Amino acid sequence: MVNTLFLPEIREMLAEDNRAELEEFCLALNAGRTAEFMEGLDDGEVWNVLQYAKPERRAEIFGYFSDARQVAMLDQEPPAQVAELVDEIPADDRVDLIQSLPEKRVGEILPLLPVDARRDIQRLRAYPDGTAGALMTTEVAMLTPNLTASEALEELGRQASELETIYYLYVVDENQLLLGVVSTRQLVSSLGKPNRTLAEMMESDVVAASVGEHQEDVAQKVEKFNLLAIPVVDDARHLAGIITHDDVIDVVREELEEDAQRIAAVTPLEESFLEVGLLMLSWKRGIWLTILFFAALLTAFALFHYDQELASFEWLVWFIPLIISAGGNSGSQSATLVITAMTSGDVEFRDWPKVMKREVVVALTLGGFLAIIGYSVAFFLAPTPIDALVIPVTLLLVIFCGCVCGGALPMIFKRLGLDPAMMSNPFVAGIVDILGIVIYINVARLILSNTLS
Amino acid sequence: MVNTLFLPEIREMLAEDNRAELEEFCLALNAGRTAEFMEGLDDGEVWNVLQYAKPERRAEIFGYFSDARQVAMLDQEPPAQVAELVDEIPADDRVDLIQSLPEKRVGEILPLLPVDARRDIQRLRAYPDGTAGALMTTEVAMLTPNLTASEALEELGRQASELETIYYLYVVDENQLLLGVVSTRQLVSSLGKPNRTLAEMMESDVVAASVGEHQEDVAQKVEKFNLLAIPVVDDARHLAGIITHDDVIDVVREELEEDAQRIAAVTPLEESFLEVGLLMLSWKRGIWLTILFFAALLTAFALFHYDQELASFEWLVWFIPLIISAGGNSGSQSATLVITAMTSGDVEFRDWPKVMKREVVVALTLGGFLAIIGYSVAFFLAPTPIDALVIPVTLLLVIFCGCVCGGALPMIFKRLGLDPAMMSNPFVAGIVDILGIVIYINVARLILSNTLS
Repeated sequence: MVNTLFLPEIREMLAEDNRAELEEFCLALNAGRTAEFMEGLDDGEVWNVLQYAKPERRAEIFGYFSDARQVAMLDQEPPAQVAELVDEIPADDRVDLIQSLPEKRVGEILPLLPVDARRDIQRLRAYPDGTAGALMTTEVAMLTPNLTASEALEELGRQASELETIYYLYVVDENQLLLGVVSTRQLVSSLGKPNRTLAEMMESDVVAASVGEHQEDVAQKVEKFNLLAIPVVDDARHLAGIITHDDVIDVVREELEEDAQRIAAVTPLEESFLEVGLLMLSWKRGIWLTILFFAALLTAFALFHYDQELASFEWLVWFIPLIISAGGNSGSQSATLVITAMTSGDVEFRDWPKVMKREVVVALTLGGFLAIIGYSVAFFLAPTPIDALVIPVTLLLVIFCGCVCGGALPMIFKRLGLDPAMMSNPFVAGIVDILGIVIYINVARLILSNTLS
Repeated sequence: MVNTLFLPEIREMLAEDNRAELEEFCLALNAGRTAEFMEGLDDGEVWNVLQYAKPERRAEIFGYFSDARQVAMLDQEPPAQVAELVDEIPADDRVDLIQSLPEKRVGEILPLLPVDARRDIQRLRAYPDGTAGALMTTEVAMLTPNLTASEALEELGRQASELETIYYLYVVDENQLLLGVVSTRQLVSSLGKPNRTLAEMMESDVVAASVGEHQEDVAQKVEKFNLLAIPVVDDARHLAGIITHDDVIDVVREELEEDAQRIAAVTPLEESFLEVGLLMLSWKRGIWLTILFFAALLTAFALFHYDQELASFEWLVWFIPLIISAGGNSGSQSATLVITAMTSGDVEFRDWPKVMKREVVVALTLGGFLAIIGYSVAFFLAPTPIDALVIPVTLLLVIFCGCVCGGALPMIFKRLGLDPAMMSNPFVAGIVDILGIVIYINVARLILSNTLS
């Protein structure tokens, strides 16, 4: 919701170039709230207001705008002002922004940055998207083990404005080899013993991520160990950076949203739903829709093949969609439950006997129940009560297949190193659709030939 | 993955009652890792090992076991030992555990707790599940505004072991009215000016949650403002507690997993997939499967109604599953994209004209493409090339309906105050299934009667 409350006042202040009030506006509120109040302004107006804030505060407020607006501003405003701002943005966010800008614009801005910021950006850009390296920031508190608690606090005070988090201090040797971690909590608790060194109080069993590790695994570690931040190390365990809790929340949200989209057979969008291009959106939906379409085409050939049975027992046709959708729905329920349970770590491959046993019980319960409803309808539509038995028997078998396929395929795909959320749905749908028709016609042959004889 | 590496050693130490080594084992590693090494032990063995840790450390290690194991241990072990442990568990986790225990057991443990812990538990138990009050902990650093930075740090050092987080200090008056917030970062940066008071450095525009606020809204605030913790206040803005970042990650994960399950037509599970009872699981899947079944039953009646058309043009039957699944799949893609976009805040109700316009364009692109594939198959199966036109025309119309329903229904349900993730799928499936058949037969009537005349 855009907050339009203060827009006229802000515009008036800008028109009057009212320095005192604009400086006050940039400073008085929580930075996130300041950004919220400016959401209704156009990009140029926001930029002009921001020039009245001190560089550090400016970057903070700027960080609360949407990625799209941030990129738009960085792309249009004067390069010198942009470079001044970019220098103040936290290292991890800065790289993401730079990578969203046109190459030409990057070429204009980079030379205006201080040499250390430029090097930092180039280093972080080298890590592939989705890895710990691409997610981390290099602004991390590194201290040597011989410092005392009070020396460490002082040092921290000096560095605080430069750091992404001050709540974990990492203890390193002269080669940046990660030796241990001390929390600010420990430091504050140790103020009574001012001569205790970091080496004495540090935890040397540090939970760390490696630069190439996938962001989903990193998020799981942070969640499991309830961390505020996780250090990122290279292969030789040199400290390269940290990933903080806010980035971890973003990863968790991103990964789960992608799962939901994959389950519904959409290749995950990389931009927000309203911003992604329509051609890209059609492509990401079209691939899977086409795959599912070819799977469904098989049913057309199967029905073509069973043409004679369908011609002799016309009433069988009426139940085709019912049977296929019962199998498909129970299959997608099972698949989704197993996929979400695997993502959250509740289910692993070794649990397969338990998962299968449970699916069988649930399938028989659900299948039995729907078979009863199905029979009570078929009873009226089929020629004889015995003919009508085709429907409940088929439903029970099809729902059984749906649950078993839906439960098994995600685990099999995961085992094969494929993405279960992406692969399972089309396969479950395809297999269950075609199996549904084969089961249906064969059950019909069996029961109806008996009634004929 | 259960780590079985040290199990024999731990069991040997227990058998020998090797106090020195067991104490060392409880202390040497990161607490999360200590718990990981014990996962393969049975509950009684874990409990025995934990008795060798100091109470605070014991609670820390205990916190890393799964909820189910924690509850099992608290339910079986001696009440006095359990009470000693419960007293050390952070206030918010403690309440959740107590609420999972049988009433009888709670009655045994509560009287053994110190009076303040008991009162705290009773207060927190009063908040309904899913609200900020139920999620918060009461262990929060509250300080008065007249303290200086160094006094505040000292006070923090004294309280640190009792607090859930020391990274935000909340400044309150004598009635616990929330006046402002100071981060430990600010405190540490202010060590150079030891006489600056909290009142001078605090941010008085505090982003807070109210006790009755829904946990999803709280999580969105924390994400939006990049907070490590959010204070929870009552209606008169008295500070009641805080919610920390680890609880926020849990909420984000829980809400998104529930969305994914609802999208696949499963009432969200409250326990983990392998732990939920089979009857409960069947019930949660059965409700929606039955609703979807009744929706699909309508297709049986529709086909029954169109019996004559199907008898005269047998080949139409072969394409029924294909047409229904094309509509259903495109509808569930649209619905899922809109639902996930609404959950993440990318789409709101007022965006509906934009969403609809985009859905129409995507529907025509996808429908047009699949219509071409459909025609090339129908060309061979239908009696004449003109008859075969029924298939592409129907596909285009059905996919159009699927995308428009799938895009519109979640927004309509949200507007009506219903849960879009839960309601959309069954409705989209039901509407598109039945529309699919009606469109199919009417298109067939139109085109095939032309070829006959």
